[in-house]
Amino acid sequence: MTINFCSNCGGPMEQRIPEADDHIRSVCKHCGFIHYLNPKTVVGTIPEYKDKILLCRRNIEPQKGKWTLPAGYLENGESVQDGAARETLEETLANVKIIEPYRMFNIVHVNQIYVMFRATLPSPEFGPTKESMDVRLFHEKDIPWENIAFKVIKETLRNYYCDKKKGIYPFKVGDIHRHS
Amino acid sequence: MTINFCSNCGGPMEQRIPEADDHIRSVCKHCGFIHYLNPKTVVGTIPEYKDKILLCRRNIEPQKGKWTLPAGYLENGESVQDGAARETLEETLANVKIIEPYRMFNIVHVNQIYVMFRATLPSPEFGPTKESMDVRLFHEKDIPWENIAFKVIKETLRNYYCDKKKGIYPFKVGDIHRHS
Repeated sequence: MTINFCSNCGGPMEQRIPEADDHIRSVCKHCGFIHYLNPKTVVGTIPEYKDKILLCRRNIEPQKGKWTLPAGYLENGESVQDGAARETLEETLANVKIIEPYRMFNIVHVNQIYVMFRATLPSPEFGPTKESMDVRLFHEKDIPWENIAFKVIKETLRNYYCDKKKGIYPFKVGDIHRHS
Repeated sequence: MTINFCSNCGGPMEQRIPEADDHIRSVCKHCGFIHYLNPKTVVGTIPEYKDKILLCRRNIEPQKGKWTLPAGYLENGESVQDGAARETLEETLANVKIIEPYRMFNIVHVNQIYVMFRATLPSPEFGPTKESMDVRLFHEKDIPWENIAFKVIKETLRNYYCDKKKGIYPFKVGDIHRHS
């Protein structure tokens, strides 16, 4: 992302290392305002109902038509748990109860951190939304592995089913690389 | 933070809900650019050396003169672990080895997420820096509880010593409120 103008005074920006800093930043030539760019956090859930999990089929680009777990950008003013539950509601109409944090992933090449929570669906109530053309519960044997939207979601699901066999779900931090 | 001007075209901004969104955003009246504001992630460590942990005494505001654990904003292009180790090096000159994630904290009223890692100091090599007027190893009995810079750091230390007595360090997500 290129920062062309100062969001404070509208002045022109330059790339330089500000005093008492050691990173190159976008700094306003007029008022000195520093426009920081930092990683964004994506929060989501693995919604469980009995022996199934809830997936949604994307109705928007990128990866329209592919299946994914409900997840989206954390907003200002909400906790990671509240954000994960809100995204799940927005994308699947399901009101989940957050169980615990399950995976964090660094996706360094797109400046994102994913935080995925295990969650339960108290009742099988869910449905399509603006963002999801279809929402369904899947048994492990029916997971559409070849049509999962994002590598980070496929990895979360793989990890989850691996841990499910052991019956324990330890929290871990992983990495998603561009080519792997 | 008020977004007065568009960082893309320099045009004036307005507050409105963009199409296919449900949050009020700063949107450019000229080019339609949406200036999103999202929570920032702070990463840090609890650096352990034998039976002691490393604290640094802040040389900068806020809380100049108070003691804290090394921590700072995650930068674009780095993993949470790398960011935590970098901040530790910058603030204490110590090269730590990250052990595992220990605590995540929501600090909703300032739009921050903290991710604190347990870490080991392979050797007692550290020292003051631009950001830290003093850096020292502390036994639990010597922790300057009345002079810890931030509530989130005090909570991390309390949690850590509580878990240390049990010998297990389960990962948890907590909340830091303005008044508590």
